[in-house]
Amino acid sequence: MGRILRAIMTNALPTTSADWTHALQQGGRATLARAITMVENDAPEAREVLRAARTLTGHALVVGVTGAPGAGKSTLVGAYVSELRRRDLSVGVLAVDPSSPLTGGALLGDRIRMLTHAGDPGVFVRSLASRGHLGGLARSTGAVVDVMDAAGRDVVVVETVGVGQSEIEVTDLADVRVVVWAPGAGDDVQAAKAGILEIADVLVVNKADLPPAAATEAALRSAASYGAGRAPTVMRTIATNGTGVPEMADQIAELAQQASGSRAAGAARRLQRQLVDAAAMVARQRAQDHSGLADLCRAVRKGELDFDEAASRLISFKA
Amino acid sequence: MGRILRAIMTNALPTTSADWTHALQQGGRATLARAITMVENDAPEAREVLRAARTLTGHALVVGVTGAPGAGKSTLVGAYVSELRRRDLSVGVLAVDPSSPLTGGALLGDRIRMLTHAGDPGVFVRSLASRGHLGGLARSTGAVVDVMDAAGRDVVVVETVGVGQSEIEVTDLADVRVVVWAPGAGDDVQAAKAGILEIADVLVVNKADLPPAAATEAALRSAASYGAGRAPTVMRTIATNGTGVPEMADQIAELAQQASGSRAAGAARRLQRQLVDAAAMVARQRAQDHSGLADLCRAVRKGELDFDEAASRLISFKA
Repeated sequence: MGRILRAIMTNALPTTSADWTHALQQGGRATLARAITMVENDAPEAREVLRAARTLTGHALVVGVTGAPGAGKSTLVGAYVSELRRRDLSVGVLAVDPSSPLTGGALLGDRIRMLTHAGDPGVFVRSLASRGHLGGLARSTGAVVDVMDAAGRDVVVVETVGVGQSEIEVTDLADVRVVVWAPGAGDDVQAAKAGILEIADVLVVNKADLPPAAATEAALRSAASYGAGRAPTVMRTIATNGTGVPEMADQIAELAQQASGSRAAGAARRLQRQLVDAAAMVARQRAQDHSGLADLCRAVRKGELDFDEAASRLISFKA
Repeated sequence: MGRILRAIMTNALPTTSADWTHALQQGGRATLARAITMVENDAPEAREVLRAARTLTGHALVVGVTGAPGAGKSTLVGAYVSELRRRDLSVGVLAVDPSSPLTGGALLGDRIRMLTHAGDPGVFVRSLASRGHLGGLARSTGAVVDVMDAAGRDVVVVETVGVGQSEIEVTDLADVRVVVWAPGAGDDVQAAKAGILEIADVLVVNKADLPPAAATEAALRSAASYGAGRAPTVMRTIATNGTGVPEMADQIAELAQQASGSRAAGAARRLQRQLVDAAAMVARQRAQDHSGLADLCRAVRKGELDFDEAASRLISFKA
């Protein structure tokens, strides 16, 4: 412990996995910030950070929040965070922006709103952007969630912008998934039905003070009733004044308890997802670097070799 | 050949790979439409269709067009298609919408504009949407491009909405990549710099009749000059009246000639990409289904096993 205190006093970083374990257990903001930066940048130290973090996960409730731009998603997350703080729960917020470099700036702009909680040590906010790199966003998101969980956050909110497939992959990491809907979007419900039911545990119609809210809620309820498996709960909120937010928080907590058991089970599921993602990424790299790739491609183009056979040959060798 | 004619007369489909080869070589719209539908739906027949198609690729110039919503991208694609038709080139347009179910409907709406070319057999338009399914969009896009190429289209335009990582993956399939920019977006250039330079061969400032166009063009030129490798060409267009579009078509054709050699090389690169994607997908499935996944996950959470080691064990066995 003296070592850790010294490390913190001198602004030095923990180095070994054991050091990180102790540091994360203190749950300090500075440690958390540094640990996440290392993981996000895939720094050499990230390995020790994550080795430590993953022995400490299984405490946090992970809530995924997604929705189309304009639905008031960020305001709702802010109101939800305030509600959790009133309940004396510590919170980590991870804002994930899967957008391309072409739109990234604008979408990240509304992060500024979270500054309401800037002075509160019980709220830790971080943004992750894809910056045009291919893949890996869902993987690093899972790792950052693990770090926040390990540092003792009671609830981790993963907020994504409702565009692209990556947001669906990201919400896969959550124990409970909330989709935020804007009033007047009722017409799109039919088309979007399959997709919504796939990813939502709770469907929230935000801006419920606007006239089309009732129609949108009715359309969502109707769509929800068609799905296989359990239908998502449909709720109304007015994020700007907090209406419906305590009820939403209750509902999320209740679903979390009903869901597949303990927080530890959630953490295990999250890690399995990361392992599978990492394995797929390694396999992709091997296939890409395979010395026979050009020959296999040539054989397929000549009609001599089946495509599926060629693809499986790319990964059927031992490393 | 009698067999093919009979098949077409009776509305029956080719069945063997050899039949499909003949059918695709005719380049008929009905054959093309059916072949693409099979590939898109991953129908059992898709395998024979693609086996045939891939022996016929290497003719088409594949142009990727992307950009933020509102940049006038679809109008520009329409004007480019008209220009190609004036040059007597046959065109295939593949509009790829990598958006989630939450926004899908709206983004696909502007496809209707392509109906200008509805009566022209030299223009074949198809939309591909992700429909909330995970992954596979870039892979099926490559396959559909192969079918259009095999059916003799001179130019295949792949148009994507500038959101999400998938659009970057999709433009990877192109020989020449065009990014469309709206005037007034100059402020975002700095932030977006790295990403743009990564994916663009041609940067087009559309709506060049709007006052901020000159400033946007200057900002893009400045940003372009910082990149590693060859800087993208910056051009101005007014898609609604065709201004600058012939010059853009010339520039694309010239870049295509300078680019890594022949159309056959482009087709080979596209197929390699599809093979690698398919291999990664197979590996992911294997990892997911691995009987030891839960045990490996448990060992990592106990700190007994390194994450990377666990991930590589998931794919190090023979199928």
